Amino acid sequence: MERTDRLYGGIQGGGSGSDAVLITESGNIVGRSHGPETNPWQVGFDVVVDTISDMVSRAKKDAGVDPNTPLITLGLSLSGGEMTEAQERIIAGLKDKYPHTSTHYHVCTDTFGSIATAFSSGGMVLISGTGSNCQLLNPSGGVAPRCGGWGHMLGDEGSGYWISQRAMKTVYDHDDGFVICEHDVTAVRDLIWKKFQMQDRFDILPHIYEKFSKAKVALLCKDLAQLAQETGDPLAVQLFRIAGQMLGRHIRTLIPKADKSLLCEPGGLHIVAIGTVLIKAWDLLKEGFLSALSDTGVEFTLVSLKEGVSSAVGAAALGAKAAGLSLTMDHAANVNVLFHYKPT
Amino acid sequence: MERTDRLYGGIQGGGSGSDAVLITESGNIVGRSHGPETNPWQVGFDVVVDTISDMVSRAKKDAGVDPNTPLITLGLSLSGGEMTEAQERIIAGLKDKYPHTSTHYHVCTDTFGSIATAFSSGGMVLISGTGSNCQLLNPSGGVAPRCGGWGHMLGDEGSGYWISQRAMKTVYDHDDGFVICEHDVTAVRDLIWKKFQMQDRFDILPHIYEKFSKAKVALLCKDLAQLAQETGDPLAVQLFRIAGQMLGRHIRTLIPKADKSLLCEPGGLHIVAIGTVLIKAWDLLKEGFLSALSDTGVEFTLVSLKEGVSSAVGAAALGAKAAGLSLTMDHAANVNVLFHYKPT
Repeated sequence: MERTDRLYGGIQGGGSGSDAVLITESGNIVGRSHGPETNPWQVGFDVVVDTISDMVSRAKKDAGVDPNTPLITLGLSLSGGEMTEAQERIIAGLKDKYPHTSTHYHVCTDTFGSIATAFSSGGMVLISGTGSNCQLLNPSGGVAPRCGGWGHMLGDEGSGYWISQRAMKTVYDHDDGFVICEHDVTAVRDLIWKKFQMQDRFDILPHIYEKFSKAKVALLCKDLAQLAQETGDPLAVQLFRIAGQMLGRHIRTLIPKADKSLLCEPGGLHIVAIGTVLIKAWDLLKEGFLSALSDTGVEFTLVSLKEGVSSAVGAAALGAKAAGLSLTMDHAANVNVLFHYKPT
Repeated sequence: MERTDRLYGGIQGGGSGSDAVLITESGNIVGRSHGPETNPWQVGFDVVVDTISDMVSRAKKDAGVDPNTPLITLGLSLSGGEMTEAQERIIAGLKDKYPHTSTHYHVCTDTFGSIATAFSSGGMVLISGTGSNCQLLNPSGGVAPRCGGWGHMLGDEGSGYWISQRAMKTVYDHDDGFVICEHDVTAVRDLIWKKFQMQDRFDILPHIYEKFSKAKVALLCKDLAQLAQETGDPLAVQLFRIAGQMLGRHIRTLIPKADKSLLCEPGGLHIVAIGTVLIKAWDLLKEGFLSALSDTGVEFTLVSLKEGVSSAVGAAALGAKAAGLSLTMDHAANVNVLFHYKPT
């Protein structure tokens, strides 16, 4: 039986939930756990520290090791983890409150865990789940250019929250007479009223202010996708087409900053697609997405993580690397091709 | 000396601060106080109830009456006060926690207090302060049509928050390369960095998430107005021109719903302009505002409340009216003409 007391941990935190994995030096996953959202700007730093400790403890139990034995390294790839301030506060919180969690820590933004899971030497990641983000990591190193990822107050274009907010905004503007929608808004309005159990227009207010949860608002997107897929409702279809354009525009913005080597790989530029919206609603997003990219003349391959593969694996690898250690990983085995585009 | 123990109270609550007045039956203001924001969806119901009680107590002391003597009526004209649920929760909170505040209560949305202050029998109000809103009250009664007023998560077009958020969004999108701004963003970027004491781009995050205050973000608009007024910075000027268009579009949306009698008054449709942005930056908003209204062919007069006149006066009148009582008020004495437009 393999020794499981020398373990490397990784956590991937998104806008709606988080994954933890514990990995042996040879790359075997021996423990897993799931937890809630861990974006410190959304839920607060204290909550994030508690959640991380709890997830690591449960993953240690899952692996059959003592929760009081620190991991060798813990890599945290978190939505909202890009600021030095955030990284320092999370590490300080863990060391102070839960000193048995790990010996070394590394915190980075969620995009890096996904890239490190899918690619061995750089690539691009596009996220559309609760929020959205796009990041490029060049094999030559240097600053990793990003587009978006500023959260719902400054962006999140093409994300589940953004699509849901636009649906609400379209209906409210139409009903006010402020901006008349070119499509019938009835089905989308009905869906919003049902989702938030509304009896009049003002009943939306608690859901977007007093009891606001970005993740909960973003869930409306699931119903909108179903409406578009099952009935072809023109407004719902249009919302996803525009979201697709926005997502394609993220990629388009970063293409000029990509190393030539990334563009010249077999299959062209490889982009790992992350997030429920991007994966489950790709059929609805595709048309808009391609319209934003068609005139770049760039070949690209969208890949998705295989069922059961989490970006927490890449987070663990980054945590080990930051401590001068390394984990064995077969990147190609982690992904499936979602879509390939070659300009004619 | 006038009896001051039989008093009618009014509170006007906006997105950045609130005013209270105590009035005698004959219309004399005998007590005043000021307090912080009282939008229950922004600051929470408990805080609003505490703030209202405190403001009324201080106004009673200002009037020289015992704080434990209830007012005859208290009219609350509050931003965020349109929902029955909000009205009931605020009244229940006051009755329960501060039973000596008043005998009767009436809660309505902030637009009604302003209309009741400026006009004797209906009119229109346009608000652009921290947030924005537009409401029409027809002399013939019936449902009062509204446009906007859904807060920063669903609208607030043309408000201080909206202008500030667009300024930030324009700079972030430009710096990402996501949407290239047609104007130089340097001066607006510098202003944002200075306002929020930023050392890098990520330093904006605490201000729009963890430590978010809508009123604080909206204050950036003051600096933007100064930049536009003093230097003519093209981006700052453009932000206010578009904000003006949005505000004009609110009016435009409600014009078809106005009673003919309101449109045919001397000076045309009377609109009371409320909020620091609308009053102080009118020179910057005017061009866009008129462009949104010029083809309606409607004559209108924008009036503003005179220095020292608060919409809390109208709130008090509405509170008395709801209890079947009435206060004497000279509406014309409360306003100045800000702008008059007559189509040629």
